[in-house]
Amino acid sequence: MKKVTVVGTGVIGNGWIARFLAQGLDVIAFDPAEGAEKRTRQAIDHAWSSLEERGLAEGVSKDRLTFMDTIEGAVREADYIQENVPEREELKKSVLQSIDEHAKPEAIIGSSTSGIKPTILQEGMAHPERFFVAHPFNPVYLLPLVEIVGGQDTDAAVIEKGHQFFESIEMKPLIIQKEVDGHVADRLMEALWREALHLVNDGVATTEEVDAAIVYGAGLRWAQMGPFLTFHLAGGEQGMRHMLEQFGPALKLPWTKLEAPELTDELKERVISGCENHAGDQTVADLEQKRNEFLVKLLDLVEEYWPETNTSAAK
Amino acid sequence: MKKVTVVGTGVIGNGWIARFLAQGLDVIAFDPAEGAEKRTRQAIDHAWSSLEERGLAEGVSKDRLTFMDTIEGAVREADYIQENVPEREELKKSVLQSIDEHAKPEAIIGSSTSGIKPTILQEGMAHPERFFVAHPFNPVYLLPLVEIVGGQDTDAAVIEKGHQFFESIEMKPLIIQKEVDGHVADRLMEALWREALHLVNDGVATTEEVDAAIVYGAGLRWAQMGPFLTFHLAGGEQGMRHMLEQFGPALKLPWTKLEAPELTDELKERVISGCENHAGDQTVADLEQKRNEFLVKLLDLVEEYWPETNTSAAK
Repeated sequence: MKKVTVVGTGVIGNGWIARFLAQGLDVIAFDPAEGAEKRTRQAIDHAWSSLEERGLAEGVSKDRLTFMDTIEGAVREADYIQENVPEREELKKSVLQSIDEHAKPEAIIGSSTSGIKPTILQEGMAHPERFFVAHPFNPVYLLPLVEIVGGQDTDAAVIEKGHQFFESIEMKPLIIQKEVDGHVADRLMEALWREALHLVNDGVATTEEVDAAIVYGAGLRWAQMGPFLTFHLAGGEQGMRHMLEQFGPALKLPWTKLEAPELTDELKERVISGCENHAGDQTVADLEQKRNEFLVKLLDLVEEYWPETNTSAAK
Repeated sequence: MKKVTVVGTGVIGNGWIARFLAQGLDVIAFDPAEGAEKRTRQAIDHAWSSLEERGLAEGVSKDRLTFMDTIEGAVREADYIQENVPEREELKKSVLQSIDEHAKPEAIIGSSTSGIKPTILQEGMAHPERFFVAHPFNPVYLLPLVEIVGGQDTDAAVIEKGHQFFESIEMKPLIIQKEVDGHVADRLMEALWREALHLVNDGVATTEEVDAAIVYGAGLRWAQMGPFLTFHLAGGEQGMRHMLEQFGPALKLPWTKLEAPELTDELKERVISGCENHAGDQTVADLEQKRNEFLVKLLDLVEEYWPETNTSAAK
């Protein structure tokens, strides 16, 4: 896939354009809003120094971006089309149908929707089998995660092609097996975000204190290790098996406004074996050592970027 | 505070000991369990190379740790006593009463409890005014966050002394104004954790996929910027004010199993002004530039420590 088209050039669409360009792709963009092209070119200029520092591919140029005046013209030649219009179901469906109508038959279409299920979005497309959700994270040109979610009518081969494409542009595609509102990552973030709003609403902490409670603690761990493996380490030598015994009862306590699922034997085994498989031949001590090495280097790095360094580190 | 005592030497107690020693303090430890001293000395050996890399204070020595056989002897001379016994209310209260009974009058007592409110724990202490919760994060010798939570009977001057003490040992103390179960950081983590368990329970994602959804995306941001400031940036030039208009309605959607609070005008203003105050004179563009510089360096660093690098980076 060499020619990509981006439809909708807000923060997310522009993030995709910057990533695609930095990976040496030809990009066509479409956005009917007044001044869209100018804003996009500014956004790319803004992102470019970071992309240069990451290392640009051969033949990369910001000039390989072309804006087109019509959606038909914009999608006609594209191998891959990324839709990023505002998060309103009817709007997205109508734009996707129009993309589908004018794209060449072998083109693949992805939507950046952060919450809507692909089965809903692909309703009414003439070729729903070539559509999936491809949900990225801000800033798209730096964060590697992209969630790929197929709908009821999505062809498995299309998911596989998408997977290969996103890997080829240095992303970490995560294929979600079962579609739910908010996919996976935003459900986790939304749970934390809603609890954060409750804490502020209940006068327990200010927004700044909530942020501090993340960046100086768990946030440092989450750059390298997710919540399950983190708790696998908290369980000591026995890992998650011990952890669930020790802290399972806390799931009944009012430590958040979110009700936990019942910790059945089946759920326990799924969580324990998941962590054990993930760890592979690495013992908890191995994982700890790797984490510590990372944390020492991260602390040296992050200290000059923490909120209290109230000036840009830019020269 | 030069002489500190650690009561209870599990993972958290040992983490405190390692941090205290690395900061050049004299540490006395007490734990009635068979083999506790041996395990603690191993844990400190394990932590030490990371602490050396962080940089040790003058006169630091692992030998400045002494185990004592009785709680009375262990706390008698201490300026500060940190309690870390298992998370059972009655056990903690009984141990804290015993510490309180034998500590010198000017000593300060902190509890590592991850969830119990200080007002409950200080019930029955003869000198409840010198007690607070001091809740750290694993690994305690590397992560700087410590939540300080006073109870109904805690003296404000004691909180202030605790604050100064933790800053002196290179921590980031966060004083929590209103006690709630799970304090602040664990409520945020618990919300995310419970949603993660729901996703695994509902067959939406495996534990490994949940972890990937964090480490390659939001986790990278949270090492440097908490959820509020992150969304302040997602709002573009207008910051959180625009963000709440745009994504506020999503709080009604089933993107997590957690119900959000009503987004009243009052809550909106609290969140917006919180972010604006936090940002100070930094524009959203300034904050973005700082974040990007950090992310570029973080990506270079973290890539060799991500889960798929399935070997310890240790030589």
